[in-house]
Amino acid sequence: MGIVGGGLGSFIGRVHTMAAGLDHRCTLVAGAFSSDPEKSKKTAPTYGVDESRAYGSFEAMLDAESRLPEEDRIDFISITTPNHTHYEIAKAAVEAGFNVICDKPMTFDLAQAEALLKTVENSDVVFALTHNYTGYPMIRQAREMIQAGELGTINAIRSQYIQGWLAERVEDGDHKQASWRTDPAKSGAAGAFGDIATHAFNLGRYVTGELPESVSCHLKTFVEGRRLDDYGTAVIRYQNGALGTVTASQISHGRENDFELEVDGTLGSLKWRQESPNEMVVRRNGQPAQIYTRAPGSGTMTPLAEASCRLPAGHPEGFYGAFSNIYAAAFDDIARRAAGESFERRDTVYPNVYDGVEGMLFIEQCVASHQQNSAWMPLSHPAARR
Amino acid sequence: MGIVGGGLGSFIGRVHTMAAGLDHRCTLVAGAFSSDPEKSKKTAPTYGVDESRAYGSFEAMLDAESRLPEEDRIDFISITTPNHTHYEIAKAAVEAGFNVICDKPMTFDLAQAEALLKTVENSDVVFALTHNYTGYPMIRQAREMIQAGELGTINAIRSQYIQGWLAERVEDGDHKQASWRTDPAKSGAAGAFGDIATHAFNLGRYVTGELPESVSCHLKTFVEGRRLDDYGTAVIRYQNGALGTVTASQISHGRENDFELEVDGTLGSLKWRQESPNEMVVRRNGQPAQIYTRAPGSGTMTPLAEASCRLPAGHPEGFYGAFSNIYAAAFDDIARRAAGESFERRDTVYPNVYDGVEGMLFIEQCVASHQQNSAWMPLSHPAARR
Amino acid sequence: MGIVGGGLGSFIGRVHTMAAGLDHRCTLVAGAFSSDPEKSKKTAPTYGVDESRAYGSFEAMLDAESRLPEEDRIDFISITTPNHTHYEIAKAAVEAGFNVICDKPMTFDLAQAEALLKTVENSDVVFALTHNYTGYPMIRQAREMIQAGELGTINAIRSQYIQGWLAERVEDGDHKQASWRTDPAKSGAAGAFGDIATHAFNLGRYVTGELPESVSCHLKTFVEGRRLDDYGTAVIRYQNGALGTVTASQISHGRENDFELEVDGTLGSLKWRQESPNEMVVRRNGQPAQIYTRAPGSGTMTPLAEASCRLPAGHPEGFYGAFSNIYAAAFDDIARRAAGESFERRDTVYPNVYDGVEGMLFIEQCVASHQQNSAWMPLSHPAARR
Amino acid sequence: MGIVGGGLGSFIGRVHTMAAGLDHRCTLVAGAFSSDPEKSKKTAPTYGVDESRAYGSFEAMLDAESRLPEEDRIDFISITTPNHTHYEIAKAAVEAGFNVICDKPMTFDLAQAEALLKTVENSDVVFALTHNYTGYPMIRQAREMIQAGELGTINAIRSQYIQGWLAERVEDGDHKQASWRTDPAKSGAAGAFGDIATHAFNLGRYVTGELPESVSCHLKTFVEGRRLDDYGTAVIRYQNGALGTVTASQISHGRENDFELEVDGTLGSLKWRQESPNEMVVRRNGQPAQIYTRAPGSGTMTPLAEASCRLPAGHPEGFYGAFSNIYAAAFDDIARRAAGESFERRDTVYPNVYDGVEGMLFIEQCVASHQQNSAWMPLSHPAARR
Repeated sequence: MGIVGGGLGSFIGRVHTMAAGLDHRCTLVAGAFSSDPEKSKKTAPTYGVDESRAYGSFEAMLDAESRLPEEDRIDFISITTPNHTHYEIAKAAVEAGFNVICDKPMTFDLAQAEALLKTVENSDVVFALTHNYTGYPMIRQAREMIQAGELGTINAIRSQYIQGWLAERVEDGDHKQASWRTDPAKSGAAGAFGDIATHAFNLGRYVTGELPESVSCHLKTFVEGRRLDDYGTAVIRYQNGALGTVTASQISHGRENDFELEVDGTLGSLKWRQESPNEMVVRRNGQPAQIYTRAPGSGTMTPLAEASCRLPAGHPEGFYGAFSNIYAAAFDDIARRAAGESFERRDTVYPNVYDGVEGMLFIEQCVASHQQNSAWMPLSHPAARR
Repeated sequence: MGIVGGGLGSFIGRVHTMAAGLDHRCTLVAGAFSSDPEKSKKTAPTYGVDESRAYGSFEAMLDAESRLPEEDRIDFISITTPNHTHYEIAKAAVEAGFNVICDKPMTFDLAQAEALLKTVENSDVVFALTHNYTGYPMIRQAREMIQAGELGTINAIRSQYIQGWLAERVEDGDHKQASWRTDPAKSGAAGAFGDIATHAFNLGRYVTGELPESVSCHLKTFVEGRRLDDYGTAVIRYQNGALGTVTASQISHGRENDFELEVDGTLGSLKWRQESPNEMVVRRNGQPAQIYTRAPGSGTMTPLAEASCRLPAGHPEGFYGAFSNIYAAAFDDIARRAAGESFERRDTVYPNVYDGVEGMLFIEQCVASHQQNSAWMPLSHPAARR
Repeated sequence: MGIVGGGLGSFIGRVHTMAAGLDHRCTLVAGAFSSDPEKSKKTAPTYGVDESRAYGSFEAMLDAESRLPEEDRIDFISITTPNHTHYEIAKAAVEAGFNVICDKPMTFDLAQAEALLKTVENSDVVFALTHNYTGYPMIRQAREMIQAGELGTINAIRSQYIQGWLAERVEDGDHKQASWRTDPAKSGAAGAFGDIATHAFNLGRYVTGELPESVSCHLKTFVEGRRLDDYGTAVIRYQNGALGTVTASQISHGRENDFELEVDGTLGSLKWRQESPNEMVVRRNGQPAQIYTRAPGSGTMTPLAEASCRLPAGHPEGFYGAFSNIYAAAFDDIARRAAGESFERRDTVYPNVYDGVEGMLFIEQCVASHQQNSAWMPLSHPAARR
Repeated sequence: MGIVGGGLGSFIGRVHTMAAGLDHRCTLVAGAFSSDPEKSKKTAPTYGVDESRAYGSFEAMLDAESRLPEEDRIDFISITTPNHTHYEIAKAAVEAGFNVICDKPMTFDLAQAEALLKTVENSDVVFALTHNYTGYPMIRQAREMIQAGELGTINAIRSQYIQGWLAERVEDGDHKQASWRTDPAKSGAAGAFGDIATHAFNLGRYVTGELPESVSCHLKTFVEGRRLDDYGTAVIRYQNGALGTVTASQISHGRENDFELEVDGTLGSLKWRQESPNEMVVRRNGQPAQIYTRAPGSGTMTPLAEASCRLPAGHPEGFYGAFSNIYAAAFDDIARRAAGESFERRDTVYPNVYDGVEGMLFIEQCVASHQQNSAWMPLSHPAARR
């Protein structure tokens, strides 16, 4: 594994490396931790990486690693830098033949996403996108139960992603996370909507498989002087007639990472909360509500969900476990590719470049709808996973 | 107390009488329980009412009671019939000089609501509307804390009112409640939006006091053959810049009466759920979340909230208690009127005719917005309580 | 209805009258509200009682009411005074032929309880004891499910009743409730164990029907200077081999009325909390946990539980509703007696004099065990309900 | 890192290696995965360990590793085998100069524990015991808040550890975990009490620091034919007068790993549940309850608790994170020892050999008390951490 990003003070870089290593299937051996070569070298030991493979740029890393013998060379790179840099890094890596695991949102804008899609399609690399919440066992259980028809026809998909860490203008200080996420030059056209509403949209898509048709959106910037939205609500019409809602907030005091998903079908409904990820409640009229839990071996879990557990029931698995599950599935394909076997491109277990394109379309159309007084904007894309 | 409605099989009629009687401040002595005089007489004893005062129509009741000596006559009537009948009953009662406690939504349409407003304003009667959720102690606590500035400027008001009892087409059978509520001739222009979204809208208004400006709405009828909406989402712009959302569902399997309110302000946020009405969580960045409970005597309650409790902390009070609190406040004004004292008309503790007008405006503009492809429709009314 | 107790400042008196009246089956018409005739007269109007029937002693009430014509006379009396007075009031009332609804614990000590049992058995009156928690619909559901064998053989019964209102020495001030409850002359041999552990013991008995065999108990008085226990734990051996635990606290800061019951059987387990009384979770290995709710009409409720509901699913019923259910069942028997019909004495829907004897035995043996270094003391009584 | 145990099918072996590796501070390089050398070799690659360092016995591992140059040799061994093997492995490792991280309970019986204590005291190795629940950030927060006096004098410590996986006699099949845990020859004198009640006892000790004085215990074996207890309750008297309760069950249907701790002090109370490990509720009379969360950077966390977090607020950390925190603290001391620095022996951040002795005393005295009809047995030990 080689990483781009993850310098001192980074949050998501650490998450990627812990997640990647949890199953002892990979070791971090190289990193372009920072664009400052000195800082990169300083960071290396905190990851157990040899200084000789701490690079000052992603180009240097790709270049040097490409020259190494195949058995020494990194098998993939993880991109954990701010959004505006994803595209050129990912493009270069794919073109150099490296598998890529990229943070979300995939690119800075839709045009880049569509270009990257072509690049990936023209390559034979594995490309995964860390919409990590799809890695939770109970989310996969939800998906498999819905695919099996247990909820009937899907009518409604409600998601709320509520945070409070940007309730004040912390971006003016030295809060690195806040600074780039509220900077249109680094984050893209949207703030909260690019950062977290994309997760909410993606999760509804992943769990139900329903294809969106159009979106009406209203965004707000509540904190004075902030340059991107910190709040908003989108209403989504799905092609099958279902209605979706995505509300995202980063200004709700004391709310941590309160991401909630509810799905209503003609035969049942479900509810899941990210902050209590190991349970999901399924309800059907005329029956007691059922609490499905992450309980491998209990007979209550669907196959992929069960395979996504590392611990017995009641031993809480959290954010790492879910993140690791994305990596684990990508590793399966990376191994297939290494073995010269074929692998699925579009309908992967992990979020992929197609999901990335859809995510960028979502962001752009939400912003466009907002700018046109919440007019309905098309939300279907030919590349959408179906 | 005299009641209109509440015949055998009625749900809300019983609630009104239990709620009215909880504090031993009134006794039900008369009722137009049914438009069938025989049925009305049969119902009377189940309420402990003498058959001689069981009437076959509201007109008969008003007429007969008016002739009774003042000390025997009913002091007020409670209207618990389907929506389309409210107006003429209320109008007649007010014009006959009886105080009125009316179920919500106040009338069949906005025009009736505005007409009733005039009737009430031209009278000296007490008029209360049973948006009963405003009677919960913790809701009143929320209101008083917000009024005191504890949450700062209000930015967002999210409410969800999720039920599942209409997930199938039960209205075709002999389900009395379902039949009239899904019948446009009895319920009005909206189904779920008239029945429960009005509560959600009203509660946000009650708790925050913010005045609405415009609304964009999308309604759905998921159950085939149903004639009114059974699902929908409205986005509301408030005059102070806050953004509101109201989602109402009657088709979410297994969801009972899951009405949730979240408010975000610049200094704090709160969350309350009707199914756990005795607690409310208030959060502020940098502090542990705080669980306020219905705990009279603990020093944590605001005055009106504390006065709205009948039991010590931890002894659950529920739907009746809240409903009773509406009655109790109306009784205070009824007593004032009886004593010849003046009483407040617009800014009452209980929901009133002004709230009723706003509720009808909300319903009509939601339907209008929906019919115009979710266009923003004005939502301010000169009669709005402020 | 006539009441003994309930003077100004009383909590439980109001509860009794609200509970009794909720279904419009009775009216409070007389009261010995206080032993001070003036205070009693002053209290009367707050209950809607005519001053002429406000008495200065229970003797006066029994005497005066007995002389009234049968159709005017009270049908029963409710005893809501401190524990040390129950016996003589109840005895006198029963001997005077009045039905009695008595607060718990039934008497001051076991000897009184056994004497009262004889008095009741020699009479033909209805005698109910307000172990009110047995009136919650979900508790009745638990009982009926266990009786139907759904949990298999019962192995374990855990109950915790945790309060915090006596964490400080409030009894020294004018806290009326605290004063008598911590006074051995009024409360009896135990404090927290007499006041709340009896409820916990009773509820386990009611729900499972298992007969106790012996008890080992350790009591504590944590607040300095207090004269009765404010904390303790009892371990109970049941005759079928099950093990029970009862922990009661009145010194746990911020805990309101947190009474929890868990039952384990060979086929399933259940958990219920008084502060969220409308749901109960039932678990079986190999199945998702099931949340049973107070949801009349849903098809998930057992008969008595369903009949114990007054409101639809999701409309919270609380403490009154449960209390009323005790009254309602007693009213059924009072009506039977009035009609000259026979009625069940021992296996009543409501807690009765036999439960009262068991409760007093429990208190006395807990205290005895504690005094003998937690030695096991017998806990079976020939009068126990089975 | 070298491991003893962790063969295919093991649960806790994987946990140890994931936990040890989470922070990139160690790599598993050797293992005596199984007593069958072939199986051990087969297991090695699933951990990324070279077959050459897969040993067929702990003796072989200690022997071979001791001969390696210091820089290649393992720094510590983790013991993850059944209880009856801990002592000889730990003793040998300590005597060979290897640091040891040992699973709990520390040994098979108290005599072994006391012998091991001497061995460790006579060495200069680091010895940690994985009472992993002490690694949760909120548990450490509880400890630090109590140490700072925020709860005042401790009065009560209630813990319940409720599981259901042994509700049936699964040990007769090929359920490896169940087999050894219910086998007195491998597990020791107690079943559920050795396996999980020790955790509950230890956590109360860790969080409050209170020293125990005596214990009264009642054990049950509910599943027919089982040879060790699967249920029990212990009451503990602490030296400061506090009262503790430990209830452990492995026969409660559908309960997963439901370990709950409640502490009452004179100034406040707290409650924590292992299945929702990232929050803890602290209550004080007269104030709203406070929900403390794992929220690094929020200003609400105590120092050690904050240092025990790897992710921002709302990103759930679970069992691994807590387990890793035990390892991390042990690594600090291992590094100190390697650097020739001194390190604390008794009052370590991680559970240690002294805690291990106390745990074994607890098990033995619980069994002894049970055998003597729940008589109070002494529970203080001169080696207890204070």
